[in-house]
Amino acid sequence: MNEQAILHIPDSRYCFPISEKEVVLRLRVDRRDPVDGVQVVYESKYVIQMRQLDERMERRYEDRLFAWYEVKLKLEDVRLSYIFKLQEQGKEWYYSEDGLCDTYDFSLAYFNFFQLPYINSADIHREVSWMSSAVFYEIFVERFCRGMEEKDDTYINMEWGEKPHPKSFAGGDLPGIIQKLDYIENLGVNALYLTPVFRSISNHKYDISDYGVIDRHFGTNEDFGRLVREAHSRGIRVVLDAVFNHCSEELIQFQDVVKRGKDSPYFDWFIIRGDRPEKEPLNYEVFAFCDYMPKFNTSNPQVQEFLLDIAVSWIKKYNIDGWRLDVSDEVSHDFWRLFRSRVKAVKPDCVIIGENWHDANPFLGGDQYDSIMNYAFTKACLDYYAFGAFNAEQFAWKLNSLLMRNTDQVNRMMMNLLDSHDTDRFYTWVGRDRKKLLSAAAVMVMFVGAPCIYYGTETLLEGGYDPDNRRCFDWNESSWDMYCMEKIKALLALRKEKAVQTGGIRVYSREGLFVLKRFLEEEELILYCNRTKEALPLAPEGDMAVENGFAEDCIDAEGFVIFRRRGCLGADASEGRKG
Amino acid sequence: MNEQAILHIPDSRYCFPISEKEVVLRLRVDRRDPVDGVQVVYESKYVIQMRQLDERMERRYEDRLFAWYEVKLKLEDVRLSYIFKLQEQGKEWYYSEDGLCDTYDFSLAYFNFFQLPYINSADIHREVSWMSSAVFYEIFVERFCRGMEEKDDTYINMEWGEKPHPKSFAGGDLPGIIQKLDYIENLGVNALYLTPVFRSISNHKYDISDYGVIDRHFGTNEDFGRLVREAHSRGIRVVLDAVFNHCSEELIQFQDVVKRGKDSPYFDWFIIRGDRPEKEPLNYEVFAFCDYMPKFNTSNPQVQEFLLDIAVSWIKKYNIDGWRLDVSDEVSHDFWRLFRSRVKAVKPDCVIIGENWHDANPFLGGDQYDSIMNYAFTKACLDYYAFGAFNAEQFAWKLNSLLMRNTDQVNRMMMNLLDSHDTDRFYTWVGRDRKKLLSAAAVMVMFVGAPCIYYGTETLLEGGYDPDNRRCFDWNESSWDMYCMEKIKALLALRKEKAVQTGGIRVYSREGLFVLKRFLEEEELILYCNRTKEALPLAPEGDMAVENGFAEDCIDAEGFVIFRRRGCLGADASEGRKG
Repeated sequence: MNEQAILHIPDSRYCFPISEKEVVLRLRVDRRDPVDGVQVVYESKYVIQMRQLDERMERRYEDRLFAWYEVKLKLEDVRLSYIFKLQEQGKEWYYSEDGLCDTYDFSLAYFNFFQLPYINSADIHREVSWMSSAVFYEIFVERFCRGMEEKDDTYINMEWGEKPHPKSFAGGDLPGIIQKLDYIENLGVNALYLTPVFRSISNHKYDISDYGVIDRHFGTNEDFGRLVREAHSRGIRVVLDAVFNHCSEELIQFQDVVKRGKDSPYFDWFIIRGDRPEKEPLNYEVFAFCDYMPKFNTSNPQVQEFLLDIAVSWIKKYNIDGWRLDVSDEVSHDFWRLFRSRVKAVKPDCVIIGENWHDANPFLGGDQYDSIMNYAFTKACLDYYAFGAFNAEQFAWKLNSLLMRNTDQVNRMMMNLLDSHDTDRFYTWVGRDRKKLLSAAAVMVMFVGAPCIYYGTETLLEGGYDPDNRRCFDWNESSWDMYCMEKIKALLALRKEKAVQTGGIRVYSREGLFVLKRFLEEEELILYCNRTKEALPLAPEGDMAVENGFAEDCIDAEGFVIFRRRGCLGADASEGRKG
Repeated sequence: MNEQAILHIPDSRYCFPISEKEVVLRLRVDRRDPVDGVQVVYESKYVIQMRQLDERMERRYEDRLFAWYEVKLKLEDVRLSYIFKLQEQGKEWYYSEDGLCDTYDFSLAYFNFFQLPYINSADIHREVSWMSSAVFYEIFVERFCRGMEEKDDTYINMEWGEKPHPKSFAGGDLPGIIQKLDYIENLGVNALYLTPVFRSISNHKYDISDYGVIDRHFGTNEDFGRLVREAHSRGIRVVLDAVFNHCSEELIQFQDVVKRGKDSPYFDWFIIRGDRPEKEPLNYEVFAFCDYMPKFNTSNPQVQEFLLDIAVSWIKKYNIDGWRLDVSDEVSHDFWRLFRSRVKAVKPDCVIIGENWHDANPFLGGDQYDSIMNYAFTKACLDYYAFGAFNAEQFAWKLNSLLMRNTDQVNRMMMNLLDSHDTDRFYTWVGRDRKKLLSAAAVMVMFVGAPCIYYGTETLLEGGYDPDNRRCFDWNESSWDMYCMEKIKALLALRKEKAVQTGGIRVYSREGLFVLKRFLEEEELILYCNRTKEALPLAPEGDMAVENGFAEDCIDAEGFVIFRRRGCLGADASEGRKG
């Protein structure tokens, strides 16, 4: 037994309540250890000395190094104390806060059991219910569709469809999105994530000078209200981009500081070394190295109130359904806690999605965000489909390790994406290989969490890094790849399956194929992907739900297939075990 | 290399800011791996692709399984990105968010470096400055000293000094403590922790019926004000017990619910299944199984305001210096976050000490408590001094692992104790062996954190489990063990040493001796303990600060000795390495 590999952390991603009476426990061990079984031995804190219950844990997730056992306990007394019991080759081990022992004296358990001292209602991370069926579509507003033909368009400096430069303006706007809501709905999308829409001089609008108004290039506040109403009438939610880490230097409060230096009442709204902001050398904190994007001092209560008021007012006035938080990892935990409490007080099912490219666990304990843009998922897909860094087994390992980074609730609210306005387009990254794109999209849709399609993916829009990843949507239907669009639609339709929305998951590889299984009650959906350059054998199981390159008993090179199987007794746990 | 043993968690006890520009990093590896060196390779998030700095990490802590490397970085740009580089037997390894590799491509680092995205001022856990020199004395008020001779003492039902029963009243009170402040000061104590003093019908007063008044058995609010003033005039701080998990059934709000059931405006202040609280069968949440101690619903904003108002008003009116939080682990994180923000807003150096018997890391991130009563330290001392479960090496391992549970700030604010009103007395547990008690006290004083002496320890007061651990203090000086008292005083005086207050620490064993070294600049204090039944050889190093059983060149059985060494260049790091 590799004792150093064993990990359990109470009150963490390894031990979390999912309701007032239910808790999920996870125990990590070395994947290669010949563990025969794991049980949790538990009882109420005040009882465990005398009497113990036990429950078998299932081996559910494996990565290159580790295997995770998991169990869901239903409790009467929510003052949970527990230790783990492991069997390995005829030997029995006990694992407590003091480590591994071959005997355990429950009469002294009080000193070293693990515990979840009490499930307090306020500490439970509540799922935003609509996220379990959400299908996102990210729109870079300036490049999606121009709807206002009559607007003052003197700012537009490129032809629609031309290759964009960093300072190009093509004319996309909110009325354009409203015009295309039928198109969007028809794809099977039910949630929009819009890049920033507030007043800003840039095309991306991540440097905001007024958080209270829609930028005039994009329309009016009335247009925005109409967009939300029309989207809602189609069952489509709207998530906006909250750029609260920094602002534009044009923000009146920063301009006041530029003019008056330390005499400005807004001096402490920013982080300035010296008496006034200077650009040469730069003496104030900014986003990246952009001197025109000063960073807010979100530890200042006045700044907090200013930003929280914005967060709440767009919900109250326009009934938006969520905030995506720009550069959220550089803003304080303290601020996001306030943000969550204010936002959820106004609209409990307003989703909060951070932009953290790395393990964001410290932000995802239920007190700050609900989830993040899952760029680690993006990277795993790139490693498998684009970079050749992963085979099927390594891809499965990585996805399992990502699932183990967070609680079930967070996983189900993740925004999973293949690309965005901040990455190359996935289709371009995989060398314009449609089969790879569709296979990756199948993984994204079948994975736990909400898939997010970057606008134009369905028409095989190309693009390298910024600004090339922000090309204009081509509305000339004759240019579209209709096969691809129909496949994307068919994949997105899988989000209506209950097994995909809330079912269990097993991710593993089998004979060179990548396998992802979702299951609920007596139904399973099983995805097989063949990323090799030759057809691989596979016996049909049940019905085929969506196919791409399945011929009788083998999957094409780069093909995938999804089977539906009914009447099975949930997932065969042992199958999830095969690495 | 045991890859599964390697652990680093960003934004955690393994990576935490200690100021706006400084961060501590820790990396855990298998203790037995022949690691030759570890460096952190780092730079600002936006620079690391092109250019990297590196810094050597020191191997500082070892337990049975693991060794921890540590480094403190001073940063210019506080958007820190980093990976680790390890050398082992001529091989070089890189450790990132994606695990261990033998090469690392910094141009792709953005996807998998570790990061502390930004040090936000509001997220830094600020140390309560007086805690670094604090010496606590815990007083169980009802048994320490009776000062009010003229009070209505018809409630007293035992002779002073008689063996206590669960419902005994001996008559101790606040004026009694005031009378003994000179005695307390003379011991070298500079902080009192008092068990509850508010209105309650029990002798321990953990079932409070009115949080606004001092219990009449103990005196008046005026007496309390006088106690704080007189203590402060001697440089002694006062910490009170906050019993906020539960109350007495006599609390008027609970009584209202008893009378009116669901019609009471206070019904949701408690957690009741049914229309009104019933004792048979018990249908409401309580502390342990005590039906007379109903649990508060601290997720209810009204309850939060009620309790927060109490917390703040005793600071504002009486200028207390801290709260010890009873059964704090069963109260929500959400509540303690509010508690901290309110308390610190009124008095930033008011210390908040939780009662968590287990790893309390989820409460100690700087957003909730400052520290806890360190019962894991208690257990380690019992395992070494009382239970025979640890030899010197195992004791050192355990103390190292406890240090690695929390950040430096938390460690320095820990309340370290050998016993309390909730345990057997340590002296009794070690079979009334004075040498063992003093040796353990030496460890407690020399360890990182504030020592806490349970009243009467200095006079060798005995006692088994509750209520025997709450015996009356014997004020008959002729019964005191003056040798013991002088030794305790001499040990407590060591808290005035800068090296003990803020110095580094190494804990290890050497030739059967337990060694604890504190060091600052060019000064070291080194404690050697011999827990064996025979004298062990030891060559004198420097001057002796406090001794107990040191004869020329060996330490007595059960003896300890503390040396002071000057002119050394801080601690020799290599020595800390010897397990």
